[in-house]
Amino acid sequence: MPEIRKDPITGSWVIIATERARRPDDFVRSPVEIRGVKVCPFCHGNEDKTPPEVLAYRNGTGPDTAGWNLRVVPNKFPALRVEGLLDREGDGIYDRMNGVGAHEVIIETPDHFLTLADLAERRIEDLFWSFRDRINDLKRDKRLRYILIFKNHGEAAGASIEHTHSQLIALPVIPRRVEEELEGALRHWQFKERCVFCDVVRQELRDGSRLVLETDHFAVMAPYAPRFPFETWIVPKAHHSHFESAEAGYPNLAWVLRAVLRKLDKVLERPAYNFMLHTAPVSEGPMAHYHWHIEVIPKLARVAGFEWGTGFHINPTPPEESAQFLRDAGTF
Amino acid sequence: MPEIRKDPITGSWVIIATERARRPDDFVRSPVEIRGVKVCPFCHGNEDKTPPEVLAYRNGTGPDTAGWNLRVVPNKFPALRVEGLLDREGDGIYDRMNGVGAHEVIIETPDHFLTLADLAERRIEDLFWSFRDRINDLKRDKRLRYILIFKNHGEAAGASIEHTHSQLIALPVIPRRVEEELEGALRHWQFKERCVFCDVVRQELRDGSRLVLETDHFAVMAPYAPRFPFETWIVPKAHHSHFESAEAGYPNLAWVLRAVLRKLDKVLERPAYNFMLHTAPVSEGPMAHYHWHIEVIPKLARVAGFEWGTGFHINPTPPEESAQFLRDAGTF
Repeated sequence: MPEIRKDPITGSWVIIATERARRPDDFVRSPVEIRGVKVCPFCHGNEDKTPPEVLAYRNGTGPDTAGWNLRVVPNKFPALRVEGLLDREGDGIYDRMNGVGAHEVIIETPDHFLTLADLAERRIEDLFWSFRDRINDLKRDKRLRYILIFKNHGEAAGASIEHTHSQLIALPVIPRRVEEELEGALRHWQFKERCVFCDVVRQELRDGSRLVLETDHFAVMAPYAPRFPFETWIVPKAHHSHFESAEAGYPNLAWVLRAVLRKLDKVLERPAYNFMLHTAPVSEGPMAHYHWHIEVIPKLARVAGFEWGTGFHINPTPPEESAQFLRDAGTF
Repeated sequence: MPEIRKDPITGSWVIIATERARRPDDFVRSPVEIRGVKVCPFCHGNEDKTPPEVLAYRNGTGPDTAGWNLRVVPNKFPALRVEGLLDREGDGIYDRMNGVGAHEVIIETPDHFLTLADLAERRIEDLFWSFRDRINDLKRDKRLRYILIFKNHGEAAGASIEHTHSQLIALPVIPRRVEEELEGALRHWQFKERCVFCDVVRQELRDGSRLVLETDHFAVMAPYAPRFPFETWIVPKAHHSHFESAEAGYPNLAWVLRAVLRKLDKVLERPAYNFMLHTAPVSEGPMAHYHWHIEVIPKLARVAGFEWGTGFHINPTPPEESAQFLRDAGTF
């Protein structure tokens, strides 16, 4: 019998096809290949092909020159712009404002042919420090309410440049998906006076069937009501609403994220994927009811179509099975 | 300057890239081709290759034989099953229930090589009568709260069988996207004592910039804050919350839907698309605040990736432009 499960945070229902479950081999494989390009603006030596950097971790070299490990630059084709006034205005029953915000690219390595999963732990840790540094800089702009950090890996997951990078979008509004989490987490808090994410971590560590791995600082799990096959969450054990104030966990997070990406690479043959950092709005102080985390979603061919048409998620792989495949893949 | 716009119904914000807008030619074309297959279970003469029909419009022939114009059968691999008890139960902080419901396929024509846009108006009208007939039959089952009707056209939009068909999923829960619309529409009603969809239709007819076409019964428009390029809504002028009670509009709707699909075929070169019928929950009586409508979303290559990663919609084509392209395409 298929099951209908409710996400304890957002309250969304999903159908989990428990009977004819899709195993990793049932998905059409389309491994992400790095082919190389003539001129890559993100490569070592091409620093003049991007807008001037806003942050870089360098070995004593000057801005916008070679000799860096990680570099943050404004997106050359930004979805939002820092200049200008918000100008909120109505148009009859409608509401609009200017696209004020920031859109930045975090170039994770100068080497074109490495993926994030290939990087040394210390380099992945740098990524988290760069997220923190950019958040702390941007949050001084009081027009901005939310900073969205995410990664699209592979063309199928929306990456238009193959050189490994993450993206940051600073918004004057709170995205719907985050608002749903905030509202759901607040409802749980009002009812129980506990953080729903803390409850989820406790239950998953006890239960174990959806657990992928556990470290001192993190629980990695397939969520109870995943929208997508092999959806995987990295949830810190310590309660912090804001990623930028959870620095103590960054070194361990580097190991954890790399382990998750390598497991996905092994089990699903280097799939395209997205990850998204869910953190509390920068416009808010510490929240007892919200808890930052990372959601990783591999993009598996021939499965995506359904929810676009229906607005409803049907997941052909139970989280207990995806967790077992990822658990059994070992760490390396 | 890009714009940030709010959908007046759900309250979601989207970024509209007004500057470097994508025109139809900027999208990579991948026209849907009907190639034919050895044995198609939806073809005339293969009625024994599907589960027994639950509805058919026939010319006096017997069930599950040839001689039909439209045929509704249970999905051979259903996401939900009619048998069994709901068995709502908790598992610690989690909620689940059995996957009780229905999953049916509406085969729109016996001819493998026609698309919905190719059909005669009278055949498309049949589709709406079949939706009504199935809704009225299924709503007698009091376990079911929502009936989702949608179409995936083309593999890129999630269709696994190329023979043209729509799908119906009857659910014991209300999908999140519909709930968002219901809640938003109720908020508008509480504030204004008017239906937000009626307000949208009035404003769009007056404004004209996002209007694709208008008939006696319908307004077709690009919505003010579309999530996707060339997203197009078909909204009835008369207020009805439930599709199944809006029968007077079906003949006109056949002409309208065909016109919209043909315009999309012309402007975007036979794109894959989804449409979804948004109607009020079958478990509710007539609602003053909700208004049924159809959302059509072409699936345009190389644009989809973004919102998966971000949980936020960035639309590179302003609705004023997509509406103009579709308006200018004429009707035929």
